[in-house]
Amino acid sequence: MEITKIPGGVTAAQGFLAADCAAGIKYENRTDMALLFSEFPCEVAGTFTTNLVKAAPVLWDQKIVYGGKKAQAVVVNAGIANAATGAEGLELCRMTAEFTGKTMNVPADAVLLGSTGVIGPQIPLEKITAGVARMSGSLSDSLEAGTSASKAIMTTDTVNKECAVSFLLPSDGGKGPVTVTLGGMAKGSGMIHPNMCTMLCYITTDCAIDRSLLQKALSAVVPDTFNMITVDGDTSTNDTLLLLANGRAGNKKITEEDDSYALFLQALFFLCRDLAITMAGDGEGATRRIETHVFHADTKENARILAKSVVASSLVKAMVFGRDANCGRILCALGYAGVPFDPDKVTVELVGEKGRVRFSENGRILAFDEDMALKLMSGKNVRFECDMNAGAEEATAWGCDLTYDYVKINGDYRS
Amino acid sequence: MEITKIPGGVTAAQGFLAADCAAGIKYENRTDMALLFSEFPCEVAGTFTTNLVKAAPVLWDQKIVYGGKKAQAVVVNAGIANAATGAEGLELCRMTAEFTGKTMNVPADAVLLGSTGVIGPQIPLEKITAGVARMSGSLSDSLEAGTSASKAIMTTDTVNKECAVSFLLPSDGGKGPVTVTLGGMAKGSGMIHPNMCTMLCYITTDCAIDRSLLQKALSAVVPDTFNMITVDGDTSTNDTLLLLANGRAGNKKITEEDDSYALFLQALFFLCRDLAITMAGDGEGATRRIETHVFHADTKENARILAKSVVASSLVKAMVFGRDANCGRILCALGYAGVPFDPDKVTVELVGEKGRVRFSENGRILAFDEDMALKLMSGKNVRFECDMNAGAEEATAWGCDLTYDYVKINGDYRS
Repeated sequence: MEITKIPGGVTAAQGFLAADCAAGIKYENRTDMALLFSEFPCEVAGTFTTNLVKAAPVLWDQKIVYGGKKAQAVVVNAGIANAATGAEGLELCRMTAEFTGKTMNVPADAVLLGSTGVIGPQIPLEKITAGVARMSGSLSDSLEAGTSASKAIMTTDTVNKECAVSFLLPSDGGKGPVTVTLGGMAKGSGMIHPNMCTMLCYITTDCAIDRSLLQKALSAVVPDTFNMITVDGDTSTNDTLLLLANGRAGNKKITEEDDSYALFLQALFFLCRDLAITMAGDGEGATRRIETHVFHADTKENARILAKSVVASSLVKAMVFGRDANCGRILCALGYAGVPFDPDKVTVELVGEKGRVRFSENGRILAFDEDMALKLMSGKNVRFECDMNAGAEEATAWGCDLTYDYVKINGDYRS
Repeated sequence: MEITKIPGGVTAAQGFLAADCAAGIKYENRTDMALLFSEFPCEVAGTFTTNLVKAAPVLWDQKIVYGGKKAQAVVVNAGIANAATGAEGLELCRMTAEFTGKTMNVPADAVLLGSTGVIGPQIPLEKITAGVARMSGSLSDSLEAGTSASKAIMTTDTVNKECAVSFLLPSDGGKGPVTVTLGGMAKGSGMIHPNMCTMLCYITTDCAIDRSLLQKALSAVVPDTFNMITVDGDTSTNDTLLLLANGRAGNKKITEEDDSYALFLQALFFLCRDLAITMAGDGEGATRRIETHVFHADTKENARILAKSVVASSLVKAMVFGRDANCGRILCALGYAGVPFDPDKVTVELVGEKGRVRFSENGRILAFDEDMALKLMSGKNVRFECDMNAGAEEATAWGCDLTYDYVKINGDYRS
């Protein structure tokens, strides 16, 4: 394989450092801020929440990303979302960025911001700036620093999420290939349908690449990775995915859609898919991940819509929690997805490491081995395969089960 | 008021009888079948699930409703949905209707069918026909018979749902007004987003009215009644709403959209709204009903979409269960509804009998009285009012909270 998964996260690529601290913003006895810093200015690409109600840090980041500015630092806090905070919230972003810029000796508009947590309250500026000051003194390029940062941005996440990959590209001087690295950290559980406590994802790379291609690559991988996961259908006000490239790998700069771009794209897809799947499995209260593969669909977009409809269904999610193979619910969720297909041609199977069970064919539920179904539904990853028998397109979506703990977590989130 | 709510349900109108029995289809120690019968042939109007996967009884009923046939009987069973059952399921419908037709001395295609329950299994024909035979001997036009029938079609419902109204229309002979009655029973929790255990609703009236106007009236009231409730976003394979009119009230037949039609429409709206609200509050596991009123919206359709987005949000539903006024989630749900509006112009309030609390204005969360908010969120009916400040249109949607019991009920529904 040309792309190798390697240890680490945001500090895996050359020239990136990270730090974290316990700023006491909302949580006690844990870290709640992270600072990510590149020793060199970065091209930056981003995708953001589609919610009309956008948090202040989203508006701040969009100005930098869409304005073509180079970025060098990212400041993230957990606990307060800085959303629905009006002009004051945006002003607090500006002040945070200015303070960070001065501290790190970079322009204020080279400082990206991210927040996750409860909607409504203003962020406490003094705690935030005190945190930035402390973190600026403890930046490190160690893999451990990246891991710690990925822990500091967690809210209801139960595990931190990071991933890194490397691959070879022709060197700038033409002296044989150099290693290019991509690393990322993420928190939360979604992009199109994220958990309210927000998906944040920060990816770093030392690849030298044109900004327009960087954005093109990011936009290309999102539809089949982050946009194919769902936890609860609620699209956050804060979702942010940023990709920073500082060009320090020494590769011949990617300026067109050549073989090097294709490899970069493939590596980025691998990384985003890995982080997305991890997020889906760590949905609030989840005990199992649900994966739905729709194939032989008539169009790619319809395959995506059908796969997402199954993993988003409350009834499918509840039945996976209860390990009850009430498989009519899968057909039902396909049926209301809103895209045309012939129900009489659909085959649905439950697939696991230990075997597979055919639930239905020709639109009709079959008698199936209940013991085997229970066994397969008891695994950590429950996979449904839906053969639409209509074409050549496919898509996979990921989600998680609906549990008592989801209700508990979201019934008393603020308190 | 020209329209009076009266006691009773499907037997309130003249010439309608009902019976029920315990046929032992799936449940034990309870009734699980109902027979509804009109002494005279009825014009019939209907709306059905939009799910592509349609249960056999839905296909059967559609043939009768769309084919312009007159109907005289409705046979409903709870426990098995007769969905995803292929040609055999449809054949079982035909045999049930033939048996009922013979028993009741009406054509087989005057017999409407309804099923609710688990998807997949075939219905046990012998138990069904034995049930029909028994019920045919115990039909009654008493209000109690209607009430018993409304109980027999329940699945996870905790209360039976019925409603009846009456109003005056000019008589056929011109001798002053006659009383016209509309009565209905329903089970389940939705239409666009119904609970998997299906919404079934049967409405009877003795009004004399053209079939085309009957269907027009039904189609007119559904968008702001049954289509505005949601429990879990899953649209069933079996949803059926039927309106039977036998013309026995003696009113001058309604043949155009005159004042009589307007009054009939108003009464039908009242009845459907009443049944819909009751269903929303009885969503699986629900402890509270959620009502969202969106007003000053730019278009009617956008008002509906925005109101539904709030009541459908898992996070809003969970916060109502936890009585936590995490009001940013309401703004968030408006924001991802998919229709354009200016977040900075929105005002959101929580309203109850004992007062109101303003959560946000100009797109910004306010400091609010937490004690009052807790008090208002502790009622059985939690109402949010969203002023979009964009136009003159409004809509109301109803749903329920998301609870541990919802997860429990749907985690072991089959077993």
